[in-house]
Amino acid sequence: MSNQAVAGLAHVGVAVRDLSAAERTYQALGAELLGREDVPAEGVRVSFLTLGGVRIELLEPLDPSAEAGVARFVRERGGGVHHLAFDTEDLAQALGSLGAQGIAPIGGGGRPGAEGRQVAFLHPRDTGGVLVELCEVRR
Amino acid sequence: MSNQAVAGLAHVGVAVRDLSAAERTYQALGAELLGREDVPAEGVRVSFLTLGGVRIELLEPLDPSAEAGVARFVRERGGGVHHLAFDTEDLAQALGSLGAQGIAPIGGGGRPGAEGRQVAFLHPRDTGGVLVELCEVRR
Repeated sequence: MSNQAVAGLAHVGVAVRDLSAAERTYQALGAELLGREDVPAEGVRVSFLTLGGVRIELLEPLDPSAEAGVARFVRERGGGVHHLAFDTEDLAQALGSLGAQGIAPIGGGGRPGAEGRQVAFLHPRDTGGVLVELCEVRR
Repeated sequence: MSNQAVAGLAHVGVAVRDLSAAERTYQALGAELLGREDVPAEGVRVSFLTLGGVRIELLEPLDPSAEAGVARFVRERGGGVHHLAFDTEDLAQALGSLGAQGIAPIGGGGRPGAEGRQVAFLHPRDTGGVLVELCEVRR
């Protein structure tokens, strides 16, 4: 993946137990609420905010007892930064370039994410401990 | 803290076991290395990179057996996103505004951080689970 493949920070994903409480906290910190959306494929309800020009995606598990994903993250850590999402102009090209370096996305390829965008996730073991999401910019 | 108090994302702090290995990983992802610095007050050696226009601060503990801070984070979680840092034009004003909402920085006030900047940290319990750093912009 060249620098060209990553066009900027899309958002910071923050896992929370209680979306409404977290929205109030971030509003107290100066954040502006943008909207909510359910993403059943990821088992989450999300809320988008901006704080200091940064998009923050709050993630609440739809089913707090679910085995994996955000539900497990919240159970084990009580919430916190869950992933970093970068914009990419061409997801297939970015994944091809990563594949050439031996880095494959979780699940093998792209899938539908929030806001109708194609996304892919890179495993923390390949990124120095950080779950990285690549989001294709809508054209 | 109003939106004005937060002028943008300063960097994403990522705790790692091995700075050199993490630098290589992020370079493989397309990041550009900017430089290293020891910050003894925080018990860390840091390396700054940019990836897709985002500054990433890799943090390696100076003493991996230290009780708290990044050393403990790495022992317990094996690395990952440690904090989000936002620029602020006036740290004293931002902390005053937060104090009026009952939010006090860790240690009670500002302190010297990386790159010769005054910084303050907000506890995750006050920010929906995220360690937040406020960095005064050099004027």
